[in-house]
Amino acid sequence: MIKETSSNALNKAFLLKSCRINTALDTISGRWKALILIHISEETNRFSLLKSALGGISDQTLGKCLKELERDGLLWKEIIAEVPVRVDYHLSEKGKALLPILVSLSEWSDMK
Amino acid sequence: MIKETSSNALNKAFLLKSCRINTALDTISGRWKALILIHISEETNRFSLLKSALGGISDQTLGKCLKELERDGLLWKEIIAEVPVRVDYHLSEKGKALLPILVSLSEWSDMK
Repeated sequence: MIKETSSNALNKAFLLKSCRINTALDTISGRWKALILIHISEETNRFSLLKSALGGISDQTLGKCLKELERDGLLWKEIIAEVPVRVDYHLSEKGKALLPILVSLSEWSDMK
Repeated sequence: MIKETSSNALNKAFLLKSCRINTALDTISGRWKALILIHISEETNRFSLLKSALGGISDQTLGKCLKELERDGLLWKEIIAEVPVRVDYHLSEKGKALLPILVSLSEWSDMK
């Protein structure tokens, strides 16, 4: 049996933490995802509205980003039975919890 | 003269903020940079110590990461006149200010 030293435990805690940070960074990296989350939080929450707001994004890229953000649990789709069918995007609790961290990152980025 | 509407001003503030977030994400993204910063904050702050701590990183990649983190103002090098010359890495104020944000990201990543 390998003795669990406090140093081993610290290393495990460290590795777990750093792994989570990289997972978080992977989830929100890329040119558009943070912007999409901020827009949705400000009620710019339909495909066409997002496309107009994010000048220059292609349909394919926007669709891919939205799918990945939904898969990663940051947003959810509300399908509204109108003609034609309307889809609204909403931030999940996890998506909302990211917003203050994005604000901290933005302020940090401005530090000299 | 274009009239400055409050909506224009809001859009400008929004774009500036989102641009800063992407700059911040670019600065710390990648497999190693967040880990390197955490290690240096815990006094694992020489090239050889970092290389041992980050099992699997090549000399070239570690050197590149350290150069970029120095260029981006997150750490600074102390050159100690021993034989052979010793180089210690230290976090700058900006580097230190990032640590609590990385901890928040790690906790956030663990949310369901």
